[in-house]
Amino acid sequence: MSLWGGAFNEPSDADLRALQDSIGFDKRMYAVDIEGSVAYAAALSLAGVITDEEAAQIINGLEAVKAEFDEGRFQLQVGDEDIHTAVERRLTELVGAVGGKLHTGRSRNDQVATDLRLWTIDALHQIDSLVGALQEALIAASEPHVETLMPGYTHLQPAQPITAAHWLMSFFWMFARDRARLSDTQSRTEVLPLGSGALAGSPFAINREFLAGQLGFEFVSENSLDAVSDRDYVAEALFAFSLIGVHLSRLAEDLILYSNPAFGYITLNDRYSTGSSLMPQKRNPDPMELARGKAGRLIGNLTGLLTTLKGLPTSYNKDLQEDKEPLFDAVDTLTLILPVITAVLRTLKLNPDRMRAALDESMLATDLADYLVSKGIPFREAHHISGRAVRLASEKGVTLTRLSVDDLHSLSDRFGHDVEAVFDFAASVARRRAQGGTAPDAVREQIARARDWLANEG
Amino acid sequence: MSLWGGAFNEPSDADLRALQDSIGFDKRMYAVDIEGSVAYAAALSLAGVITDEEAAQIINGLEAVKAEFDEGRFQLQVGDEDIHTAVERRLTELVGAVGGKLHTGRSRNDQVATDLRLWTIDALHQIDSLVGALQEALIAASEPHVETLMPGYTHLQPAQPITAAHWLMSFFWMFARDRARLSDTQSRTEVLPLGSGALAGSPFAINREFLAGQLGFEFVSENSLDAVSDRDYVAEALFAFSLIGVHLSRLAEDLILYSNPAFGYITLNDRYSTGSSLMPQKRNPDPMELARGKAGRLIGNLTGLLTTLKGLPTSYNKDLQEDKEPLFDAVDTLTLILPVITAVLRTLKLNPDRMRAALDESMLATDLADYLVSKGIPFREAHHISGRAVRLASEKGVTLTRLSVDDLHSLSDRFGHDVEAVFDFAASVARRRAQGGTAPDAVREQIARARDWLANEG
Amino acid sequence: MSLWGGAFNEPSDADLRALQDSIGFDKRMYAVDIEGSVAYAAALSLAGVITDEEAAQIINGLEAVKAEFDEGRFQLQVGDEDIHTAVERRLTELVGAVGGKLHTGRSRNDQVATDLRLWTIDALHQIDSLVGALQEALIAASEPHVETLMPGYTHLQPAQPITAAHWLMSFFWMFARDRARLSDTQSRTEVLPLGSGALAGSPFAINREFLAGQLGFEFVSENSLDAVSDRDYVAEALFAFSLIGVHLSRLAEDLILYSNPAFGYITLNDRYSTGSSLMPQKRNPDPMELARGKAGRLIGNLTGLLTTLKGLPTSYNKDLQEDKEPLFDAVDTLTLILPVITAVLRTLKLNPDRMRAALDESMLATDLADYLVSKGIPFREAHHISGRAVRLASEKGVTLTRLSVDDLHSLSDRFGHDVEAVFDFAASVARRRAQGGTAPDAVREQIARARDWLANEG
Amino acid sequence: MSLWGGAFNEPSDADLRALQDSIGFDKRMYAVDIEGSVAYAAALSLAGVITDEEAAQIINGLEAVKAEFDEGRFQLQVGDEDIHTAVERRLTELVGAVGGKLHTGRSRNDQVATDLRLWTIDALHQIDSLVGALQEALIAASEPHVETLMPGYTHLQPAQPITAAHWLMSFFWMFARDRARLSDTQSRTEVLPLGSGALAGSPFAINREFLAGQLGFEFVSENSLDAVSDRDYVAEALFAFSLIGVHLSRLAEDLILYSNPAFGYITLNDRYSTGSSLMPQKRNPDPMELARGKAGRLIGNLTGLLTTLKGLPTSYNKDLQEDKEPLFDAVDTLTLILPVITAVLRTLKLNPDRMRAALDESMLATDLADYLVSKGIPFREAHHISGRAVRLASEKGVTLTRLSVDDLHSLSDRFGHDVEAVFDFAASVARRRAQGGTAPDAVREQIARARDWLANEG
Repeated sequence: MSLWGGAFNEPSDADLRALQDSIGFDKRMYAVDIEGSVAYAAALSLAGVITDEEAAQIINGLEAVKAEFDEGRFQLQVGDEDIHTAVERRLTELVGAVGGKLHTGRSRNDQVATDLRLWTIDALHQIDSLVGALQEALIAASEPHVETLMPGYTHLQPAQPITAAHWLMSFFWMFARDRARLSDTQSRTEVLPLGSGALAGSPFAINREFLAGQLGFEFVSENSLDAVSDRDYVAEALFAFSLIGVHLSRLAEDLILYSNPAFGYITLNDRYSTGSSLMPQKRNPDPMELARGKAGRLIGNLTGLLTTLKGLPTSYNKDLQEDKEPLFDAVDTLTLILPVITAVLRTLKLNPDRMRAALDESMLATDLADYLVSKGIPFREAHHISGRAVRLASEKGVTLTRLSVDDLHSLSDRFGHDVEAVFDFAASVARRRAQGGTAPDAVREQIARARDWLANEG
Repeated sequence: MSLWGGAFNEPSDADLRALQDSIGFDKRMYAVDIEGSVAYAAALSLAGVITDEEAAQIINGLEAVKAEFDEGRFQLQVGDEDIHTAVERRLTELVGAVGGKLHTGRSRNDQVATDLRLWTIDALHQIDSLVGALQEALIAASEPHVETLMPGYTHLQPAQPITAAHWLMSFFWMFARDRARLSDTQSRTEVLPLGSGALAGSPFAINREFLAGQLGFEFVSENSLDAVSDRDYVAEALFAFSLIGVHLSRLAEDLILYSNPAFGYITLNDRYSTGSSLMPQKRNPDPMELARGKAGRLIGNLTGLLTTLKGLPTSYNKDLQEDKEPLFDAVDTLTLILPVITAVLRTLKLNPDRMRAALDESMLATDLADYLVSKGIPFREAHHISGRAVRLASEKGVTLTRLSVDDLHSLSDRFGHDVEAVFDFAASVARRRAQGGTAPDAVREQIARARDWLANEG
Repeated sequence: MSLWGGAFNEPSDADLRALQDSIGFDKRMYAVDIEGSVAYAAALSLAGVITDEEAAQIINGLEAVKAEFDEGRFQLQVGDEDIHTAVERRLTELVGAVGGKLHTGRSRNDQVATDLRLWTIDALHQIDSLVGALQEALIAASEPHVETLMPGYTHLQPAQPITAAHWLMSFFWMFARDRARLSDTQSRTEVLPLGSGALAGSPFAINREFLAGQLGFEFVSENSLDAVSDRDYVAEALFAFSLIGVHLSRLAEDLILYSNPAFGYITLNDRYSTGSSLMPQKRNPDPMELARGKAGRLIGNLTGLLTTLKGLPTSYNKDLQEDKEPLFDAVDTLTLILPVITAVLRTLKLNPDRMRAALDESMLATDLADYLVSKGIPFREAHHISGRAVRLASEKGVTLTRLSVDDLHSLSDRFGHDVEAVFDFAASVARRRAQGGTAPDAVREQIARARDWLANEG
Repeated sequence: MSLWGGAFNEPSDADLRALQDSIGFDKRMYAVDIEGSVAYAAALSLAGVITDEEAAQIINGLEAVKAEFDEGRFQLQVGDEDIHTAVERRLTELVGAVGGKLHTGRSRNDQVATDLRLWTIDALHQIDSLVGALQEALIAASEPHVETLMPGYTHLQPAQPITAAHWLMSFFWMFARDRARLSDTQSRTEVLPLGSGALAGSPFAINREFLAGQLGFEFVSENSLDAVSDRDYVAEALFAFSLIGVHLSRLAEDLILYSNPAFGYITLNDRYSTGSSLMPQKRNPDPMELARGKAGRLIGNLTGLLTTLKGLPTSYNKDLQEDKEPLFDAVDTLTLILPVITAVLRTLKLNPDRMRAALDESMLATDLADYLVSKGIPFREAHHISGRAVRLASEKGVTLTRLSVDDLHSLSDRFGHDVEAVFDFAASVARRRAQGGTAPDAVREQIARARDWLANEG
């Protein structure tokens, strides 16, 4: 260490810049930065701080800068420490000293807060659309399988027969909640901070309602100190994204399990399976594993930001520069995963024969107990009798169906010949037709409600 | 290890029970468990599964069990592994075999999901009220200080003068967002899972809309598999609580800093300071430090639950039993902190003299630049000139005010004698009267809007 | 809210005490608190601060207090805000004013830091023993199955045949790393803070090396400011516990999957399966699901503490009181899980027939490629040819074995009749005998090394 | 949404590749990937799997590929999904079909595990050096201030006088623990996975001890299933980095506070302060704020990885691809911060006058109590008397020193004229000369021990 540790006495300008400059990641906000500046130039002009002609010069210049970015012609220069500096520097090169009037009464504190809100609003819309497409894929995958029987699990142990559509649709509602959260987050993001200055507000007669209207914000921030340091909306977006990640991880877990040959309930399209560098026969569900694994990354982004925010003193602190990278990473992560999982669902093949073969009559033990309830036995006792029937079948080495009526009589005299009707998987499923149940009729209604949801709330 | 490791070959019943039983923490849900069962008994009767008389017997029995809990007379027994089992066991003791009919078509999976939602709904209301009381204390603390000047900070460095009320009110809006989040979470919690059975729905003609009405739920769950495993609302509550914790930690940080004698801006009531076991003179802001520290705990609870949920296979898994302790802990934590911080604010003494003494004329450098803007100099250039003035004053060892007009003229010929009007802290503050600004007039409006918020949304 | 919000104006003494008092959870440190005080009394006497007789009185008194705790006779009183206060209060009641000499030169800051280190040292030993017992159970479960064949998975897809003992032993080494981490944490915990006073060190001639010796610490802290605020060892213990939790979650996942009837590779002892309140036939692997779920809780405890520590100013801050509850919770959690999972392993039944039946010849495709390598074909090409063979078999609807030598010849002329020897699961496994491989011989060596590890490092 | 949602039916190849390909981030491992392959070619040759000549061809080819990377000439091509594929593809272009022999018996599972361990070993060394340089800067900053008095704080309230060197050195020991953790992590990273194949071990006579020697690993992995999925060392590195981040955040907090003019204890070199876009006078401690904020990011990386690992089934799963980005990000983060904070310390200016001026005689109240102890009063009582003296001084509006001996006598008759010697800050500090205390003599010894630590353990 002592040989080269001395090199750290004085960090080079490059070290300092690398630590402090945000241009490396905030340049992707160029469009919203310029959008905010265009609106601000108009507001300065309305307030009489600059003339209409100056505003026009500035706005034309800003549009020229935006064109350079759009077309990949913008040249970063030394000193462009962040997107705001880069844009203003280039603007002044293009329009001259009048460019220096744009920042009147504005601070990078309220500017960056405005930029990031605009960027987040777009991102929330984008993720919402991607989740919506996934919901549609779930409906499309469900519809042909409203009557397809499969084992339902709790504790990953066979529990009761269900319909495959019911299983798939269970994810629809998770994503519906996610989209409701995105929408709520959206409404708390649409609060304009511009006009808050560095911390104390603006001494110029900026019409903040006008600015909000120009930029599509629903509200104007109520306190300038809060406005420049509020990152709740970023945390809230990261939380909503984390739960989307959790739901994707659960869907992925099921798809991974059910495509294992021991289950064999589904076949993933070859396109969404990948091979092995060593084992020629492998078909690996990589996209699902990545979806499951990336839930960790999304949760890490959330945890990191919350920890950064904890204990900060009043108003703006540079720590807040740590807001953008986790947000960008989370948005990029979901933008990668969601379309692929959607495509996986659209190309998913269910194997009803394998599902049907995995049904076991002991999964009807609850129905057997319900039969006894219908004969007047309290459920708690019926549950015990049914459990004894399962044990008796197991001791005899037969399935539950193969117990004779005499066998059953030995457990309770309420058993009659009509008990045979109990041992029918389709009938079991059909009985569960209360709202939200697995019966084909109930699932058809469920799908109809899901379509309504998409039409009205999606 | 080998001496006693053998003891672990066979865990005792106590080991197993200690791991699996939840009665230790879920017994606090007894009231909502019984509330759910009363409604369910009524629904069973409506569905014709039990008679009206049986329903009445069961409901009377449940009320007797509740009375035992309310009065501290309930006796836990071996085998009471969770609150559901304990209540049903005692019910059956009191009313006989008919008690065994209550669980017809119901599983602990939909039962516990219902209980926890009911409990959460109450908890969200309770925390909302406590945050509301804190907001009122912030308004009350602000009102006498609408014209009190103090240094405003960014990066914890003196930035611009602000009013003390503006500083205090900045926290009001953080808590307003928190309450909006609590309300959104509430609406997603009010979804009835009861009637979902273990996973597949109910085979009995349970009227779930009736149940929802009885129990005060706004919605009925749409998919039974999802209903028994949805813990989004717990995660969402933990997230909302985490942000409340972050906001409290920021308020606490300010109160800790400002009560340090180097600042001396505030004096905490003796009652909310504590002494030292070693140092007789100490007055420690313990409640604020605990508020700051407990943000970590709240974030930990959130992270833990999200991690538990990640990758779970379909429907109910026992992992979900890990939902309650972090939720209970977070609610208890906020229930402890919030009233104390509210009381701290109600008894807080501001020291305007210390605040005023900490103002430094260099904090008016932005106003000096704005003066030059008013003389037609672009802000960017004005900012540079003002910066040079600060440096010149520093080199001369005087404050900015003490620079002569000649000194200023050497930096720009636009400086005139009217520049003296710039060096007035109260005037600086008064200029920032755009919405959300620190000017007394703007802050009075802000407080009025805050009162409106409390009246309409709080 | 307004109806009762007023109640929060003044928190009752109960509110304040509930927030600040730690006696509710730190009383479990009574034994180490008294142990530290006994040593400190001896050190005060050695330093001439108190007489030998006074020391004897104090030590006798402390032992009497300890006996009261041990026997459940200790009576908490109002004002006993923490264990230190409670013990000193009772001591003084028992021995009179001399008890007031015990705290000379000591602060609760160095006292609690000492107590918690002593407690942690014990806890680390305890958890280490429990993990050791689990390792022994893994060896015992592995030994009968060194030659038992089962499918090995990557991406949860069948990959290559392995031996069941190899699968079980893979967990042994995870826990070996865990125990190494516990040991490293131990060495950084054995640093004595006592004698640091509140923050500045002791003005009395306390012999800190003597104290360290008395209390079993290996080192003496080097800086009093650091000593009273160092909680690294708690974070480090929570991290080590989190990884134990992660490893348990992975073991649990395998046990849950393999006990699903679709796999059927293992049968859990009935004692470690639990039933369902609704479905009479269910055998749920609850302890495994709890082990998996509690990994989240352990990670949450770690995250919470790290967040609490972030950004604290120098020396002791009350935030640090948040160190104990996550630590206690993590230790309690592992103390609950580990013995049960150990017992699950000790009673685990493997089903070699089901494992064998799940082997599929395509899992030998790598062996087929290796065969071609032995004939001089570069592996990359051999891999492609083997892959084509898998596809050909699939197209023909036969297993890989059923391809004729002619079929294989159509893919490569290097195939000879000796290829048949490739299609032997046992031979495939036996070939992987390099260190760490799945061959029975290699696994026998692995188990021998594991025994050595337990003897020397465990 | 429905207008363009259809675009997601089929993700383009670009979508799939963007999700699954790791070349974007794993290409930075090219050097270690090639290092591992060179060693593996030698091992294949030793095992007789390839000839010496083939090995030489492969190794020459690998070196040529490395040169292309080193010199920025390497051209990525479509299909280069990860660094392993890219290198092998290019190797085969350069050396022909023999390149296809390199992967014999190797899988990307053991290859990537080897690569990442090699990369981590380098990274741990690099971070260790940077922390070492920071420690040296702390010593250098401390040495001139062994006798400089300043207020010591607990709860951020003035507690007792300390020496400035003692304050600075308190951070030295935090970083010493960090380096010990890095070292422990290092030893658990130096375990060779190569030779584990995809999961089951190698069927070729690869000498794994030879490979370990070539690549500088201390150990050879004991179980192939574990070897391909063990990411403990990544989690452990991320944990060690998180605690470094926590320590930096605490140092940063102190530097931020003490450079606030209300304290004024330190002056940051202008180079490490930055200006404001709006406020010309600002000198912001940006690097310190970023250091504090980035602790969150480091903790987020750790939390994310632990969550990803939780609940994974046996052996390799694609989720593990999520190991690299958090690790790279954490290493990059510390590589940015550490040299800058080191430079901040090397250029830090302490202001002894401001420190001295902030000392307040009430900070000697403990010394006053100790004086009474020396007169035979039990500490607990002495503490109370001293507390009353503080209050009396406060009521009289004087400092503690200004109380007359008569005043003091009214509180206890043990006070004599020698009490005046108590009121001397330097003497107070000098009394705390036990190991780890703040006395100049003790601090000189502390610095000597720190130098020893650097020489022997650093």
